[in-house]
Amino acid sequence: MTVYLDHAATTPLRDEARDAWLDAAARCGNASSIHRAGQDARRLLEESRERLAAVLDCDPIEVVFTSGGTESINTALKGLWWARADGTDAMVLPDGEHHATLDTVQWLHDHEHAPVRAVALDAAGRVPAEAFADALPGAAVATALVANNEVGTINDADALAHAASQAGVPLHLDAVAAFGHIPVAFRAWRGDARGQSGLCALSVSAHKIGGPVGVGALVVSRHAAPTALLQGGGQQRSLRSGTQDVAGAAAFAVAAECAWAERDAEAARLAALRDRLVRGIRASVDDAQLLGDPHDRLPGNAHVLFPGALGETLLFLLDRADVCASTGSACQAGIPEPSHVVTAIGRSDAEARQVLRFTLGRTSTEGDIDALLAVLPQVVERARASSGPRSVSRS
Amino acid sequence: MTVYLDHAATTPLRDEARDAWLDAAARCGNASSIHRAGQDARRLLEESRERLAAVLDCDPIEVVFTSGGTESINTALKGLWWARADGTDAMVLPDGEHHATLDTVQWLHDHEHAPVRAVALDAAGRVPAEAFADALPGAAVATALVANNEVGTINDADALAHAASQAGVPLHLDAVAAFGHIPVAFRAWRGDARGQSGLCALSVSAHKIGGPVGVGALVVSRHAAPTALLQGGGQQRSLRSGTQDVAGAAAFAVAAECAWAERDAEAARLAALRDRLVRGIRASVDDAQLLGDPHDRLPGNAHVLFPGALGETLLFLLDRADVCASTGSACQAGIPEPSHVVTAIGRSDAEARQVLRFTLGRTSTEGDIDALLAVLPQVVERARASSGPRSVSRS
Repeated sequence: MTVYLDHAATTPLRDEARDAWLDAAARCGNASSIHRAGQDARRLLEESRERLAAVLDCDPIEVVFTSGGTESINTALKGLWWARADGTDAMVLPDGEHHATLDTVQWLHDHEHAPVRAVALDAAGRVPAEAFADALPGAAVATALVANNEVGTINDADALAHAASQAGVPLHLDAVAAFGHIPVAFRAWRGDARGQSGLCALSVSAHKIGGPVGVGALVVSRHAAPTALLQGGGQQRSLRSGTQDVAGAAAFAVAAECAWAERDAEAARLAALRDRLVRGIRASVDDAQLLGDPHDRLPGNAHVLFPGALGETLLFLLDRADVCASTGSACQAGIPEPSHVVTAIGRSDAEARQVLRFTLGRTSTEGDIDALLAVLPQVVERARASSGPRSVSRS
Repeated sequence: MTVYLDHAATTPLRDEARDAWLDAAARCGNASSIHRAGQDARRLLEESRERLAAVLDCDPIEVVFTSGGTESINTALKGLWWARADGTDAMVLPDGEHHATLDTVQWLHDHEHAPVRAVALDAAGRVPAEAFADALPGAAVATALVANNEVGTINDADALAHAASQAGVPLHLDAVAAFGHIPVAFRAWRGDARGQSGLCALSVSAHKIGGPVGVGALVVSRHAAPTALLQGGGQQRSLRSGTQDVAGAAAFAVAAECAWAERDAEAARLAALRDRLVRGIRASVDDAQLLGDPHDRLPGNAHVLFPGALGETLLFLLDRADVCASTGSACQAGIPEPSHVVTAIGRSDAEARQVLRFTLGRTSTEGDIDALLAVLPQVVERARASSGPRSVSRS
């Protein structure tokens, strides 16, 4: 039986989401068609938009369905950049963002000559609100994670959004890793921001919370007008053209409602499991270090540095013992490289290759933790032996 | 029982595609994860890519999965434009393309200052290969429909691709309406084109052939290097980053195989049904005119001009009689406007508001045709009466 401890990469589809998908997919109608089959589809789509908006604390019209987190992030960052008033300002980019953000900003830099202002993380992996605020004046767009997808540290989204509002800068928040685990409150975070300043856009993804892969959303404030990334039929306020995936939207909304309904109990359950995991690791691998904020972190996230052991070797050996974990983001097309998040919190390149991320989810049990802990000491020992002193400097 | 004659807008999900989706969605693993759960997902994904490539007549590595036709078209046109050598050349755009193409080219014109060279359609709705070839020299990108999604006319894709190859211009073909109904042969159409010239990219969509909504593909020649529209994890040759929708890909591949297996029999069946429909319309509405090429058209397409009757009124009255049809593309967010395709084939704006598109599909029967024909004469009569001489000039 495989022990799956990589829920941040993707988590099993919820039965309720599958059923909602099946039910919607069994009906035939394009939500842009004006006949009754189309209008039935449209009704289900708009109902799903309302249900998702309720969980995200935004207006239904602010929910723009997309194909996932990467499209949402690309749409927000490019769209807000293109919609800016003039060409002289900059992107504010904290270190340690997800690759969808990093690579989009890199593209805007290379292709659209967007200057980039970096914001250093603190040692816990947090975007410091003061440093963020200092970088904002005159910027065209700012972005930040709600919670770091690798080390799990939770940012003060409210403070970041307030700073952007004060500075008159449009902000995008990447809530892909956070949504479903901690409250995501678009309206509250936007506060009394005016027009295209403060929190303007927020990205979420369905498959991270038990919805299907290939479905996401970008919340776009009704006061913001980013340039669209996809042109076509003009669907969704012309912010995202394309035939709307009603079944995907319905499944996403149901998954979000399920996650919301169980949020407190599940957060407590996962945090307890996670603490059991961390205690067990510390007891058996005495120099293992938990990275990220020890308290203010996603409940299901344990991100651990194993000095002297290559993460990819650990991963391989764990996989042979039927345990699935990760060295960081799964979103880099399978190419193992030192984690840029770990170096961003002040660790060396060598250390950034000696980490594992364990992420728990709905199906995780004490049995999973115990199964991991039963094999981990030998796995770390073997990884250290095979990594050797030449390939990895034991820090 | 609703009579659904709008299969070009979307067609029912095939049972085989639904089962493939369910089977894949029940497994949990991100295809970018290197553990076994991820690799199992990756295996299914790559197998799906191979199966789809076989139907599209291309190499598996040339299949880039997307969220649908609109994303595919945007990716191809913007990507090829951005990847061009210099900024002085133009886009070649036939009249009567789908809005995803028109609006993308418009955006490239407005935002990237791309000059546009229009190519007029002939009276049958065809892109004349000679006129197309004449527009090509020195262009940066050219695009064309394989078959027109409104009037159903089939273009000579081979001739258009050959002309692009001869002119050294990269070509995108929009096969969204054609795929699953007539052969789509990427390799054959590309022929012996060299590098980034000739057929470089081709767009298809799953939900038009019985796959799920929210899934599509862009075939990108291994010799072409369009700039990506979505940056991130670097999946799919870095042409389309984002967690890959394995279930969607599997369902699309299965739908494509089903459509391919039944292609000859189904094309003959639909053409016979379509001819029955056209004969019936002509017998009961004597001045109705079939638009588009009478012979060289998609088998399930009947596009009819009803002089003196507003299309949207016809649609409304048919809908009340439980018949779903369309005034044209469903992809314009439900806003009725004169069809740009109908004006592009030389008809007046008034005529372009007096059309209906009937599109047949897998579930269509003689009973559907007869049910439509039973109500159509009265519907047309009532539409003409309510349209009145002031609102519609009877041409």
